[in-house]
Amino acid sequence: MSFRHGLRLLYSQLSVFSRELNRPWCRYISSSLALSSEKRATDFNSLVARTNTCGELRSAHVGQEVTLCGWIQYQRQGLFLVLRDFQGLTQIIIPQDEAHSHVKKVLYDAPVESVVRVTGTVTSRPPGQKNPRMPTGDIEVKVKTAEVLNSCKKLPFEIKDFIKKSEALRMQYRYLDLRSFQMQHNLRLRSQMVMKMREYLCNLHGFVDVETPTLFKRTPGGAKEFVVPSREPGKFYCLPQSPQQFKQLLMIGGLDRYFQVARCYRDEGSKPDRQPEFTQRHLQNKDFEALKESAKSQFNQEVLHLILKPDESLKSPLSKFLSEEQQSELIQALKVQADDVVLLAAGEHEKVCLVLGNMRLESANLLELRGLVLRDPTAFHFLWVVDFPLFLHKEENPAELESAHHPFTAPHPSDTSLLYSEPAKIRSQHYDLVLNGSEIGGGSIRIHNAEQQRFVLETVLKEDPELLSHLLEALKCGAPPHGGIALGLDRLICLVAGAPSIRDVIAFPKSFKGRDLMSNAPDYITPEELEPYHIQVAWPAAEAEANKN
Amino acid sequence: MSFRHGLRLLYSQLSVFSRELNRPWCRYISSSLALSSEKRATDFNSLVARTNTCGELRSAHVGQEVTLCGWIQYQRQGLFLVLRDFQGLTQIIIPQDEAHSHVKKVLYDAPVESVVRVTGTVTSRPPGQKNPRMPTGDIEVKVKTAEVLNSCKKLPFEIKDFIKKSEALRMQYRYLDLRSFQMQHNLRLRSQMVMKMREYLCNLHGFVDVETPTLFKRTPGGAKEFVVPSREPGKFYCLPQSPQQFKQLLMIGGLDRYFQVARCYRDEGSKPDRQPEFTQRHLQNKDFEALKESAKSQFNQEVLHLILKPDESLKSPLSKFLSEEQQSELIQALKVQADDVVLLAAGEHEKVCLVLGNMRLESANLLELRGLVLRDPTAFHFLWVVDFPLFLHKEENPAELESAHHPFTAPHPSDTSLLYSEPAKIRSQHYDLVLNGSEIGGGSIRIHNAEQQRFVLETVLKEDPELLSHLLEALKCGAPPHGGIALGLDRLICLVAGAPSIRDVIAFPKSFKGRDLMSNAPDYITPEELEPYHIQVAWPAAEAEANKN
Repeated sequence: MSFRHGLRLLYSQLSVFSRELNRPWCRYISSSLALSSEKRATDFNSLVARTNTCGELRSAHVGQEVTLCGWIQYQRQGLFLVLRDFQGLTQIIIPQDEAHSHVKKVLYDAPVESVVRVTGTVTSRPPGQKNPRMPTGDIEVKVKTAEVLNSCKKLPFEIKDFIKKSEALRMQYRYLDLRSFQMQHNLRLRSQMVMKMREYLCNLHGFVDVETPTLFKRTPGGAKEFVVPSREPGKFYCLPQSPQQFKQLLMIGGLDRYFQVARCYRDEGSKPDRQPEFTQRHLQNKDFEALKESAKSQFNQEVLHLILKPDESLKSPLSKFLSEEQQSELIQALKVQADDVVLLAAGEHEKVCLVLGNMRLESANLLELRGLVLRDPTAFHFLWVVDFPLFLHKEENPAELESAHHPFTAPHPSDTSLLYSEPAKIRSQHYDLVLNGSEIGGGSIRIHNAEQQRFVLETVLKEDPELLSHLLEALKCGAPPHGGIALGLDRLICLVAGAPSIRDVIAFPKSFKGRDLMSNAPDYITPEELEPYHIQVAWPAAEAEANKN
Repeated sequence: MSFRHGLRLLYSQLSVFSRELNRPWCRYISSSLALSSEKRATDFNSLVARTNTCGELRSAHVGQEVTLCGWIQYQRQGLFLVLRDFQGLTQIIIPQDEAHSHVKKVLYDAPVESVVRVTGTVTSRPPGQKNPRMPTGDIEVKVKTAEVLNSCKKLPFEIKDFIKKSEALRMQYRYLDLRSFQMQHNLRLRSQMVMKMREYLCNLHGFVDVETPTLFKRTPGGAKEFVVPSREPGKFYCLPQSPQQFKQLLMIGGLDRYFQVARCYRDEGSKPDRQPEFTQRHLQNKDFEALKESAKSQFNQEVLHLILKPDESLKSPLSKFLSEEQQSELIQALKVQADDVVLLAAGEHEKVCLVLGNMRLESANLLELRGLVLRDPTAFHFLWVVDFPLFLHKEENPAELESAHHPFTAPHPSDTSLLYSEPAKIRSQHYDLVLNGSEIGGGSIRIHNAEQQRFVLETVLKEDPELLSHLLEALKCGAPPHGGIALGLDRLICLVAGAPSIRDVIAFPKSFKGRDLMSNAPDYITPEELEPYHIQVAWPAAEAEANKN
């Protein structure tokens, strides 16, 4: 539920909530990822003018008269063209006889990417001209009539090599980028995956799909929430970061199994120093130096390396400080084998774990750059992270506690008694789900007892419980035990699709800076248009000066 | 698509878009309203601590040990109680023997609406005590163990008679209101209907569910769009009124069958004079006077009545102006029968139709108040409205034209040639769907030709086409012919559920004034919190004065 390092401005979340949980049923959700291969009777040709898609004709169709619609992928010398739709490609033979000269002219003149409708007969390709690499490669369609439904101007880039184009150009012409095989595949996969989740939750387990409001009240301290001015002077809605409070209220309201594909809004601001998720460096023979430098610059941490040579001697800046016996103990303890590299760091346990975890990933990246496949991108490895601490010592003031997850997470049932004596030692009922090393979701069993919730807010966290009075009130009104999970859909589908960025699984994504490069949003609006909302722009000094001049 | 008299601040819309339309396939959508009665293998008891719901035990279960969870509906003298969950009610027998004194005390002390878990044996009710009006009325559960999962304080109102409570109280305690049978039914029906629509579109016809952005650019003249300040000084997003432009761009992008359950944002302001949808008046013998008064006050239109008496004479203020022959002609033309009432109005055709249509509805209301059932609330009558004009003369300047629907609607294919000569005479490819007299949806076939779109914007509507340059550009890039429909889900489900207001089919609705009465949104936020967005509140003079003092 908490994507602390989330890169996105706006993301979708599958939010599942259920009362009376007694086991981590969320595992069933991950199993729904195995998309069923059973053929459903999906009819892509219902409701429209075509008889077939461009991907479905085979030898069995030879002799049939068909009507296809699609984009002209390419055309060669007025002899044939290849028609494309979302299902595939079909080769079209342009008639050369006088009686069809009109059809020939229509298709000869139509620019690439024009939309055409053709009617003709499916024929077998001549011997030697079949294309086994093309699903429709056994046949071609001899056209009798053709119509250009819409002509296409010269495009800023060819559809097929979109991937080589700059991200900015792809975003500006997103509607062309969407025609690429990869984007078609990703968005259709996303739709199917979400549908499978819905069928599983709704049809098999009786979950109820409930839409919760996106115009809501600002959460105290919710610094990352977008504000929306209302027509009441000085009053604002906010766009919620998650359906957090509503899902608890639905549980209390007796909607005992709720789910929603919810839009979540998080204003991450526009930080020019934002890092992409994976840092790849091209490093030759200085790999150790690069790793050490990275540990130093990112974490201010010294890291030493240690190599076991084939003659069983240690090569390390450390070796001169260790006796032979110590060296041999170290080799045994770490089960080091010849040519293995060991990275060592000394310091506070949590910090050193973080640094070394990072070094491990960077080492894997380095090895994969050298051609070694360590992580199979087609394998899905899921991991549950459990037994989180319920509270953490505040970094700026270790005497005070803050929630590790959020203040509504319930204590671990075995630890509840410690809540009133040693809260810092309690484990929580918070769980995170990790796929191939990326956090894809998380959730918790919630506190359902009003007194316990008030104690956590007031006594442990020193927060003002009045700010959440409507939730505390609701917990007193017969709130059932409840909990749930939220999956970050963008990230999950990105991993399943093997896409390099979440922007490849979102139809119209924002840029890193939160801009829509196609329509140029956000944009200036006039003071008159702001008037009904009783707000005005507070220009920063420099710009106000510039505006004056 | 255009709910001009929409009452809601925020509504959900099922938006379906498809290219290559050649018939009004939308009719299939309406057929999906017939919710399938086939039993799916929905397991409401998976993943949780109970063995059964409170609605499913029958004689066949007698002898089984079961665990139920639910709310205490009522408890009588420590002898028995009725347990409620979302599936029904089950009678629980409290043991009276010494060995179970603890169980007796637990259940005796638990207040109404507390959440309990009980385990016991299903037994047949004694002869004469079966309750045929209760689905579980043949059995009761003899409890062995019981646990109060959460105790309930005294509630502000009883769950069962919520309907008598004021709307404000229901909204303030929405989580209690949601426990009512009616709200449970409505929200579950909504979830099932939307799921059926998804299955139909996604599984049967290959539509792709695509999420489009809700942080978008302001539409020129989009006065009803909420604005969202960004962190770039002076720049704003807006919350779109519909996925309008995105669905066209998806068609152009080759997502040839798109649908979405989309959130639409329309800031209708807070008009204190807003009318509920149906006006009901309680009128005794002055019905005609009331009808005439209503026509006069609402439309400034005179209406006359005319009654055919059993002796075939006319009773009407008009009769003295008509010859016997004229009276008899009128009776024949209108096929008036004895005791029939006819309302007459004279004036401009369109206005008079509007007034008389209104009088017809008011008359029906009056008759139904007298106990005559004219409109069967369980019958669903669908109606397509087609052949709308493409343009209308502007009310303020009849020499100029405006779009009847929106500027993207395509002309009727039979009328296209008139576009360049007599645009005011063209019919459009716009269609509306009406259910039991209420508009529940609408859509259109869109213009896919860039030149035609530019001509409509520039020459017919005298608008600046540069404001829509990205759409015009996209139409030139091989845009396929396309069109679609959007259903207003709130309204549709309201009609199907027979609910008095759309607020009864929305989990957390806003009030007429756009307020969330539970959390008190919108609310004041501090100037410091507005700082990152470079805006400040422009207080109206009176309030600024008050704030100063």
